[in-house]
Amino acid sequence: MAADGRARAGRFSTPHGMLETPVFAPVGTQATVKAVTPAQLHELGASLVLANTYHLYLRPGDQLVSDMGGLHQFMQWPKPMLTDSGGFQVFSLSDTRQIDDDGVTFRSHLDGSAHRFTPERAVAIQENLGADIVMVLDECAEPYDRAYNEIAMQRTHAWARRSMAARTRPDQAMFGIVQGGVFPDLRARSAEFIAAQQFEGNAIGGLSVGESKAEMYAMLDVVTPILPADKPRYLMGVGTPEDLVEGIRRGVDIFDCVLPTRLGRTGAVFLRAGGRLNMKNAEFARDTRPVDDACACYSCQNFSRAYLRHLVQTKEMLASTLLSIHNLHTLVQLAKDLRAAVLRHEFELYVTALNVRAGAIE
Amino acid sequence: MAADGRARAGRFSTPHGMLETPVFAPVGTQATVKAVTPAQLHELGASLVLANTYHLYLRPGDQLVSDMGGLHQFMQWPKPMLTDSGGFQVFSLSDTRQIDDDGVTFRSHLDGSAHRFTPERAVAIQENLGADIVMVLDECAEPYDRAYNEIAMQRTHAWARRSMAARTRPDQAMFGIVQGGVFPDLRARSAEFIAAQQFEGNAIGGLSVGESKAEMYAMLDVVTPILPADKPRYLMGVGTPEDLVEGIRRGVDIFDCVLPTRLGRTGAVFLRAGGRLNMKNAEFARDTRPVDDACACYSCQNFSRAYLRHLVQTKEMLASTLLSIHNLHTLVQLAKDLRAAVLRHEFELYVTALNVRAGAIE
Repeated sequence: MAADGRARAGRFSTPHGMLETPVFAPVGTQATVKAVTPAQLHELGASLVLANTYHLYLRPGDQLVSDMGGLHQFMQWPKPMLTDSGGFQVFSLSDTRQIDDDGVTFRSHLDGSAHRFTPERAVAIQENLGADIVMVLDECAEPYDRAYNEIAMQRTHAWARRSMAARTRPDQAMFGIVQGGVFPDLRARSAEFIAAQQFEGNAIGGLSVGESKAEMYAMLDVVTPILPADKPRYLMGVGTPEDLVEGIRRGVDIFDCVLPTRLGRTGAVFLRAGGRLNMKNAEFARDTRPVDDACACYSCQNFSRAYLRHLVQTKEMLASTLLSIHNLHTLVQLAKDLRAAVLRHEFELYVTALNVRAGAIE
Repeated sequence: MAADGRARAGRFSTPHGMLETPVFAPVGTQATVKAVTPAQLHELGASLVLANTYHLYLRPGDQLVSDMGGLHQFMQWPKPMLTDSGGFQVFSLSDTRQIDDDGVTFRSHLDGSAHRFTPERAVAIQENLGADIVMVLDECAEPYDRAYNEIAMQRTHAWARRSMAARTRPDQAMFGIVQGGVFPDLRARSAEFIAAQQFEGNAIGGLSVGESKAEMYAMLDVVTPILPADKPRYLMGVGTPEDLVEGIRRGVDIFDCVLPTRLGRTGAVFLRAGGRLNMKNAEFARDTRPVDDACACYSCQNFSRAYLRHLVQTKEMLASTLLSIHNLHTLVQLAKDLRAAVLRHEFELYVTALNVRAGAIE
């Protein structure tokens, strides 16, 4: 693990190859990164891909995925994979849920059917799915409610221990999750507890869920110094160019986010130094330049803004594919470039040259 | 031009390379083959790609495409392209249209705005778009209405002459279009007239629009012997495995159809020897085989029926991409294999071994 200030460059061994960190993981919710083939993911430089346990448990079912040879074989992604625990989706997608100390009962967002996740069940489902990295079931609380955050944190800690005890697959790495909302003392207590459990890696949950950027970065400043330096740190559900810079600067190693593909499907693209373009805009109608002159992705190497705008205007599926490829490549490549800068001990120099600015549709 | 019976194997020179026939052309209606990138089109073996003049005239506009360097540059397809005249879409998509001997006035299916195509205007638009092969404006009549077919045919003939006279780009090939519904005597008269105009190629229009397969094949039996043997013959809008076999057997060289991509977007796949699978079916839920064991396409080389069914069930865009790739490859490759069989003088032997059967969802 090389370091430059608090930024790090690491390597994490998995059954599907060495994972170089910092890394941005595209999200393949339903065992597919939306509108992008595995060949395109490979070409754009992806290494780690995330899939969602909640969705795959409902469809096609974790037992079916297991019977088909596991997630890597099923979706034909031969490199490292990570599954979340399903907890976040239970709290964000399911209409009704009842949580108790043992687990959570929820209704499917698809057909209203009743289901129950416990820490042990979330581990068993993820063992069926077969990713290289699995996550403990946690409770994600509303970030500003201190009383609820204290309860949710305690429950998350108890569930972390039970998850660890429920493991039967030594080939899978398990990551614990730090909670605690926007409260520095809760975050510190949670990081200390999770650090003590000896997971193979540690995650920071419950951020990018409504709090400000300043609050998110302040929580990272509290948590990362407490988490073990020799294990990867994963900031869950976060991923814009500016968040990668600020997270890596504070010692985060792994990121994932649906934003690059979600924005791609709505016609928006990241610029590498932060900010976005809305490709619907009339100003691009006759713009022969690529989205980003300096970008090496398939979309920027081949297509003009004028063509991309036409695809967005006419609601063609190819717009989703080409814009998602660009957005994913931008984050995947930025993480790699920041890793190289750490190894050269030029992280801050590189970030200054990048001139990152906060994101907003131009 | 080699022949085996009435089946032929030809070569047609274009500014974007030699076109080997028989050939199946994927349809890129709005300057994109839906859900498929140019790189994927190249990989699946496509040579000729069709685009629709009606759609591109409305969005983004033929002048814009011309200003952006033409269709090849705009959509990044470096191989031969063909545009239709827009006539078929005026008759099938526009709610209201008024046709007279000079041209056709219609309303946009997008916003109801009024537009007018004449033979000369259709040529000018296609010259702006810049495909290698352009089509004359024709009138496609209801196939069983003899009186209307006689009028439409006469108009189509007059428009063919005017289209020829309106050309200003010697680098583009122009194809005339034979009409005449399901009436052998009209088809013969039309083929004789069109053949006499000395177009660079000749097309057969107004088929696969509601008549039976037997009627379509009977019309080919009338028309192809009349059309010049040394020029390509293009059967417009037709493309299933069985129709390729029956068309090539009767001396057709070029085919196009939206069916492979449209079926792909609805979850259905072609089998090479005819027939289809509906990938939604529960029987495929745990089927580890590819769609077609013998298929060399990206989808069949990598993914199980179980995975494809999951993508269709969950309405993932990747389903459209992977099934479209398979369906397009099936037709593109079948045309190439039939070409090779003609060159070996084994066309009928090859077709017998293929054991083609009529298409139906299994």
